[in-house]
Amino acid sequence: MNIVNIELIKKAKCFGGWVEYYTHTSVSTQTSMTFSIFVPESAAAKANKPAMIWLSGLTCTEENFITKAGVFPWASEHGITVICPDTSPRGTDLPGEHDSYDFGSGAGFYLNATEKLWSENYRMYDYVVNEITEILFSNFSIALDCLSISGHSMGGHGALIMALKNRDKFKSVSAFSPIINPMNCPWGQKAFSLYLGENQADWEQYDSLMLVDKTASIPPMLIDQGLADDFLEVQLKTDVFTKKINDKGFTDSCTIRMQEGYDHSYFFIASFIKDHIDFHAAHICRD
Amino acid sequence: MNIVNIELIKKAKCFGGWVEYYTHTSVSTQTSMTFSIFVPESAAAKANKPAMIWLSGLTCTEENFITKAGVFPWASEHGITVICPDTSPRGTDLPGEHDSYDFGSGAGFYLNATEKLWSENYRMYDYVVNEITEILFSNFSIALDCLSISGHSMGGHGALIMALKNRDKFKSVSAFSPIINPMNCPWGQKAFSLYLGENQADWEQYDSLMLVDKTASIPPMLIDQGLADDFLEVQLKTDVFTKKINDKGFTDSCTIRMQEGYDHSYFFIASFIKDHIDFHAAHICRD
Repeated sequence: MNIVNIELIKKAKCFGGWVEYYTHTSVSTQTSMTFSIFVPESAAAKANKPAMIWLSGLTCTEENFITKAGVFPWASEHGITVICPDTSPRGTDLPGEHDSYDFGSGAGFYLNATEKLWSENYRMYDYVVNEITEILFSNFSIALDCLSISGHSMGGHGALIMALKNRDKFKSVSAFSPIINPMNCPWGQKAFSLYLGENQADWEQYDSLMLVDKTASIPPMLIDQGLADDFLEVQLKTDVFTKKINDKGFTDSCTIRMQEGYDHSYFFIASFIKDHIDFHAAHICRD
Repeated sequence: MNIVNIELIKKAKCFGGWVEYYTHTSVSTQTSMTFSIFVPESAAAKANKPAMIWLSGLTCTEENFITKAGVFPWASEHGITVICPDTSPRGTDLPGEHDSYDFGSGAGFYLNATEKLWSENYRMYDYVVNEITEILFSNFSIALDCLSISGHSMGGHGALIMALKNRDKFKSVSAFSPIINPMNCPWGQKAFSLYLGENQADWEQYDSLMLVDKTASIPPMLIDQGLADDFLEVQLKTDVFTKKINDKGFTDSCTIRMQEGYDHSYFFIASFIKDHIDFHAAHICRD
């Protein structure tokens, strides 16, 4: 593995470990990219260091989860390193890139764009699956078989598709309020048509529902969805996914919890992030 | 007690309880004021409901602590309601009010201004000691003898002076990185001279070091200060306070912890907020 040339921007001691922010040049996006990472104090003693990648939602950056989720005590308890990439390339100024909250900057949708305008930089799928994992393995000594992935909303979509397509890399996956069937909701249809073009066969490789439909098995999976989430009915449609999991007989591998009264905010994430860390710990902590 | 007319702006379920934001007209500042509050699920079962007031630092609002401190699990464990006022009046446009980060808006310094320009609105001392407590007692059924106060930096200063001057109201006080001797640091000298005028005798009533010097006893007190805090040497000067506590023989009532490697950020607060909640719980939880 190759050490990636990452540059420390800032760091702060936290729970005995360190929150750090880095920038580096990405070969996937051909831009500089920034990420935050929490390395708990308890990671140092681990022979097989585990990590969780967190993918944030629309409009977010590497800052949201690390500051708002309250993940530190639970990650420290298990010695799990948590890395938070940005949600899109930055520093480019493509036509229309910064005009809307649900497309372009802050809305990379964790795919590799094929449409001419976006295909050079908007390659967040490759960036996370290849570069972020490479950085974890080579720069932070994470064990190859101790990696999990999670995310929120657009990031929940990203976590699920990446785990479903890379069973060798991600031992478990979880999501809060994921965009579970982007092909059939307004957010996904807008992003997929602009990034991937109009051929819906090309969309299926980035749609969790379609990926589950076509697979013979799924990785260990935990999904939390708030029932007071304003986006549930039109954008998230968890019920369609629940039915698919049942129809495919995957209920042993997948827990979907519909949480009464919770909305789409980080207050929801903070409420259940301990459960998600505990869930991943059972799959990625070997010592 | 009188129910204050507060208006709910937004709410989100969190850890089984609720994070809520309210606005109301303040008789102290003669402006509308906003606060956030976390009412844990476990508060409902308490006969004597405890609460902690949190005072934020320079540039902050009612938003910083509630989103970044990770207080929810610990407050829930003890059934402690947490209320976070804003740091200054808003909506006014006094000459120079918005020109600097360390004076005026976002920098009320938790005092009652006496200088003509500021004396009508900048009365954050009265606002917190009288109105916020009244709201807790009358609108949220907090028990009169189950109230504590805490804060960060400028808010640590606010918490300490309010607890030292109101032993009947606040059963315990804690602070992160407090401005412990504002009369003798640049932040405090600028604010005190502009809000209170040049007579330093008027400043002493808002200076923790001076208040401790003149009192025969102090409330239970916990202070955490990071040793990698860039503001420690010039603005915070914890050592002077530690010496005073020792000289006065108050060490049984006051714990001051100098934390190796920690800076002035919310990552520091998140690291030790559990200890502060546990500390307050011992003084304000009666059932």
